[in-house]
Amino acid sequence: MALDTMHDLLIDELSDIYNAEKQLVKALPKMAKAATTPKLKQAFLGHLEETKGHVTRLEQAFEMLGESPKRKKCKAMEGLVAEGSDMCGEDGDDAVRDAGIIGAAQRVEHYEIAAYGGAVAYATALGETKVAAVLARTLKEEHAANDKLSTIAEREVNPAALDAGSEAGDDEE
Amino acid sequence: MALDTMHDLLIDELSDIYNAEKQLVKALPKMAKAATTPKLKQAFLGHLEETKGHVTRLEQAFEMLGESPKRKKCKAMEGLVAEGSDMCGEDGDDAVRDAGIIGAAQRVEHYEIAAYGGAVAYATALGETKVAAVLARTLKEEHAANDKLSTIAEREVNPAALDAGSEAGDDEE
Repeated sequence: MALDTMHDLLIDELSDIYNAEKQLVKALPKMAKAATTPKLKQAFLGHLEETKGHVTRLEQAFEMLGESPKRKKCKAMEGLVAEGSDMCGEDGDDAVRDAGIIGAAQRVEHYEIAAYGGAVAYATALGETKVAAVLARTLKEEHAANDKLSTIAEREVNPAALDAGSEAGDDEE
Repeated sequence: MALDTMHDLLIDELSDIYNAEKQLVKALPKMAKAATTPKLKQAFLGHLEETKGHVTRLEQAFEMLGESPKRKKCKAMEGLVAEGSDMCGEDGDDAVRDAGIIGAAQRVEHYEIAAYGGAVAYATALGETKVAAVLARTLKEEHAANDKLSTIAEREVNPAALDAGSEAGDDEE
């Protein structure tokens, strides 16, 4: 399907994000399971519920635009999820692995921030203000999810991961 | 290799970014070639030079840490580059495709923003202030590259893509 108009591009981008969100709905429970820090587990489970809501909002956006999602595999999210899965399976200290899982999750959030940021811009340019508003709500939640992960990392997980380093001795410096 | 300490995690993350940047050095000339808007072409070529500098800075960071990069394929960047490549090959209007290429490139920048953001946090937590400073310089440039793409999209590419829509008629509404 050719990208002849901005409308075509918006549908293409929303189809990409729709597939990405659906991949994420499957991946988040695994990340919650792998995380050992209780607040991090809770954050993933909370974001899972939000993510299901993002899928619903995308379906609303397609309906408002009189379209249905194109069948499209989001290759970037496949790679992001694969990296997250690799990190979840790493051997070593629990807090260090949790710090790594946060890193993988923040890459996912940033992917979504970029994707929704673009989609909001296209919808706004097209005068599709209601669609833009729905997508902007999700964009705000992705920013908040990313900020929450930063806070958990700074206050809890990274300090615990540093302790792991001192327990392991000073062979790392 | 187990992630026993924060130092191990920093090396792991830097190895991921190192591979990602090297993939990007190969991908950016292709994106510059595919872009039709002169300012966008220039932005990609300018960022290619910056990206080569980011590779060098990562090599400096490894040296400061007394380590060498682990052989690691950044799966997320593979997916991001594949998506960018797909967008470069799309049929349709040049300005619409350029808007889509900007979208793909901003996803790449956001990946790097997340990755360097994490690495700076780990280096800072470890007291590796010189390493943190080197990585923070790159992080700043990734933010600037992303902002530049937003400006080109808003001022030039998206308005031209909207014109494409009106030329193509009103079969899209």
